[in-house]
Amino acid sequence: MAKNIKPRSTDYNQWYLDVIKAAQLADYSPVKGCMVIRPEGYAIWEAIQRDLDGRFKDTGHVNAYFPLLIPQSFLAKEAKHVEGFAMECAVVTHSRLQKDPSGTGVRPDPDSKLEEPLIIRPTSETIIGHMYSQWIQSYRDLPVLINQWCNVMRWEMRTRLFLRTAEFLWQEGHTAHETAEEAQEETLRMLDVYAAFAEHTLALPVIKGAKTDAEKFPGADTTYCIEALMQDGKALQAGTSHNLGINFAKAFDIQFLGRDQQKHHCFTTSWGVSTRLIGATIMAHSDDDGLVLPPRVAPTLLAIVPIYKTPEEEAKVRAFVEKLLVSLVGQAEVDAGAKRLSKDGVAGYIFDRVSHQRIVADWRDARPGDKQYHWEQRGVPLRIEVGPRDVDGNCFVLKQRLDRSKAVVPVGEASAAWLSAKLDDVQKAMFDKALKFREENIRSAASYDELKSLLAEKGGFVRCYFEPNREIEAKIKEETKGTVRCIPFDQPGTPGKCVYSGKETSTQVLFAQSY
Amino acid sequence: MAKNIKPRSTDYNQWYLDVIKAAQLADYSPVKGCMVIRPEGYAIWEAIQRDLDGRFKDTGHVNAYFPLLIPQSFLAKEAKHVEGFAMECAVVTHSRLQKDPSGTGVRPDPDSKLEEPLIIRPTSETIIGHMYSQWIQSYRDLPVLINQWCNVMRWEMRTRLFLRTAEFLWQEGHTAHETAEEAQEETLRMLDVYAAFAEHTLALPVIKGAKTDAEKFPGADTTYCIEALMQDGKALQAGTSHNLGINFAKAFDIQFLGRDQQKHHCFTTSWGVSTRLIGATIMAHSDDDGLVLPPRVAPTLLAIVPIYKTPEEEAKVRAFVEKLLVSLVGQAEVDAGAKRLSKDGVAGYIFDRVSHQRIVADWRDARPGDKQYHWEQRGVPLRIEVGPRDVDGNCFVLKQRLDRSKAVVPVGEASAAWLSAKLDDVQKAMFDKALKFREENIRSAASYDELKSLLAEKGGFVRCYFEPNREIEAKIKEETKGTVRCIPFDQPGTPGKCVYSGKETSTQVLFAQSY
Repeated sequence: MAKNIKPRSTDYNQWYLDVIKAAQLADYSPVKGCMVIRPEGYAIWEAIQRDLDGRFKDTGHVNAYFPLLIPQSFLAKEAKHVEGFAMECAVVTHSRLQKDPSGTGVRPDPDSKLEEPLIIRPTSETIIGHMYSQWIQSYRDLPVLINQWCNVMRWEMRTRLFLRTAEFLWQEGHTAHETAEEAQEETLRMLDVYAAFAEHTLALPVIKGAKTDAEKFPGADTTYCIEALMQDGKALQAGTSHNLGINFAKAFDIQFLGRDQQKHHCFTTSWGVSTRLIGATIMAHSDDDGLVLPPRVAPTLLAIVPIYKTPEEEAKVRAFVEKLLVSLVGQAEVDAGAKRLSKDGVAGYIFDRVSHQRIVADWRDARPGDKQYHWEQRGVPLRIEVGPRDVDGNCFVLKQRLDRSKAVVPVGEASAAWLSAKLDDVQKAMFDKALKFREENIRSAASYDELKSLLAEKGGFVRCYFEPNREIEAKIKEETKGTVRCIPFDQPGTPGKCVYSGKETSTQVLFAQSY
Repeated sequence: MAKNIKPRSTDYNQWYLDVIKAAQLADYSPVKGCMVIRPEGYAIWEAIQRDLDGRFKDTGHVNAYFPLLIPQSFLAKEAKHVEGFAMECAVVTHSRLQKDPSGTGVRPDPDSKLEEPLIIRPTSETIIGHMYSQWIQSYRDLPVLINQWCNVMRWEMRTRLFLRTAEFLWQEGHTAHETAEEAQEETLRMLDVYAAFAEHTLALPVIKGAKTDAEKFPGADTTYCIEALMQDGKALQAGTSHNLGINFAKAFDIQFLGRDQQKHHCFTTSWGVSTRLIGATIMAHSDDDGLVLPPRVAPTLLAIVPIYKTPEEEAKVRAFVEKLLVSLVGQAEVDAGAKRLSKDGVAGYIFDRVSHQRIVADWRDARPGDKQYHWEQRGVPLRIEVGPRDVDGNCFVLKQRLDRSKAVVPVGEASAAWLSAKLDDVQKAMFDKALKFREENIRSAASYDELKSLLAEKGGFVRCYFEPNREIEAKIKEETKGTVRCIPFDQPGTPGKCVYSGKETSTQVLFAQSY
């Protein structure tokens, strides 16, 4: 067992932090609630961005960039929106620093006070709404299908690396449409994009559904979400897609001249996923030995650990590893990689030119066991061990991070296609494992007592008939720490008794405790 | 001549803004000094990012993300740094909004005043220096080679879209090294990366050199830069690379245990380019008809404009265009593109899966001349015109945006390789044209009078012997509006007389007025 990582069963929260620290994914910053995403963590975000961005473009979206700062008055234009975000706003009030007359430091220059305070965007519906009102004149200008990759800021009391931080990175799609039907189609299309991405790329099974009124986005008509299950039985909202109706169009006067020569308000949507997806990926797949990464987002796909004692053995193993590398990435990349050798002796070889995912050969002056441990804790999906006896046998040992399996592989089998296939197998096995866990952790409740005891004792999702109601949901949350995660799309079609009121309802929901 | 674009000769500044507006690259935002980068402009930034990011990774760098907000006290730790940036800082002082008791709006909640004000990063040496001091312990941890893509904020009085805005997007590389030599090598390596990128990808010839002390980055030992020349004869700094010596290592206590078992300060560097590169690209290449984009950063590579009057002609032309498209992008993409047809009748076909650069066919209900005009103003490098007679002749008309040339091309010649070659030709012609312009606009001055008259009457770069001196440079700037753009690497090797003092010096510099 890893000494620097608490087991999940002892302290799940500490385990999560230990996994992040051991893999050097992120660090706390000197600004409360804000994190530093370290290179190993940021590479996961880059993989997420690359994949999702392609999906957005394939569905006709384009990227743009809107300002970080928003006049405070904009927030106030949509009543529910300001209610939802006012308590979390970082407010800019001055535009200069000056020497602090009382000491050696600096302070805001009182003469630089802004006429109107600006807030750092917690989300950009308001400023984008304002711009859309200027860009959209006619139905011919519609639909507008824009996405933005950026940072946002929501002041949080309790933070947790990746899952809940004051500043986080995300993408926010904002679209405007001629008809309510088109806006609804778009809202669901992007939810599908998120679900397909989470399952394909993060190996994260998700449940699609609608939020109850109590849980929806401030200013939305309807919020849809994808919900994933973590290993401690808590749910995690992994993405949301909002049908904003004409709420923001009214607040920001986004109108178009229709085919009927009349002015109409646009129907708008917004949808987003954030760096919390990295947290979800860590939590869903990792184990007591540290990070386990799905191959599709792993910066390092394969680590080769040589074993040798004498210089003769080293020479023999080196020649073999080089031959192996040539069969995996080609001679040109092997030559290029040799030039990129780090001072400490780790050589990186690019396996995929587009994603920059790499293979490493670890020639550091350290014990093979320590090297294995190093790459294991970083979640590298596959490792290869090569010693003098393997060279003699013309083979190597392949170790899988996920299931700890070992296999002896004849070196002739190794090729780029072989490695890709192995990685696809791992990806599939990770999804299957996560899906099995989730299926085992969806239970039904017929009564409120049963709901309460399932949430307290088993965790996971609890499925039950329930008539959504803001006050009752607040009460249930207080009593069980559980909330309605979603009204899943998959409904029974037959009515049943509401678990709380006993009244007949046709709505089933999923309750869970959540991140 | 375009009605919506002022000619360069009449009003160069207005021409620049008109070109941006006509091509829908950017827009002003309701927050003073902050711009909105519209999809057509952001796509250029994406192309820049993709290309540069690959170059950074090929030279061993990795990406990370550091917080947006920096404690104000951090800025004060490096004396010159705070002097350089204090007057431009956006300062966050509160963490909540509340209802304004005097009206219907909101205001910063006085009870949410932060203990220490935070500034929005104008650049990240300070916060990154702080983190490096925690991550770096031993020489084995070096070098650290990290880059960050992010937004930064520097309050500016006079702003100009892309070239000077309060908020802008950029990348900032920050590296730490064991020795002064390695830091210097890194500083120059990244300058070379910038120069190669500007010339290859933006078709922008640049001159490499060092800044004088008066012009260097606040806190740097030496600043290197690449300088480009715009069509109005003003220079534009297109990228900088700083050797920070141990200045920030001392201010933030970045120390490592050396091979000699002693503690040493790290040598650090930083380097950056920003969205001002988009401005440089627009200014360097566009003409009185609007935007001209280098193919390597153009979102749309080719626009196909059909010409027809009757439904029979339309059917005939459509069939021909489809055949042409198949030869350019393949049947699968033609089928996919048909599904992405916009409401107004523009069909987009992806030509390059990695860069998402596209070909469009413009089937809008508009006059062919208006369509030509539309794509011309957007800087699309190549256009194809196809009418019924072309179909009969089994050919099409190819028009180049750059030189307005027209050529009749037999349809059998069209293929992906043919288009790529045509685009490469355009790219090369753009670079050659810009290089010729620059070479014609580098002049020498032997006296201060000559320098003054050249700067006033001819513009461009003026090369002369000059002994850099902070006060004299300030005086020259006042009298000529010109500054030392750089001390070019390419030096004569023989001494001459300083243009200002008449004393012998071995240093030649380039003066110019600049953006």
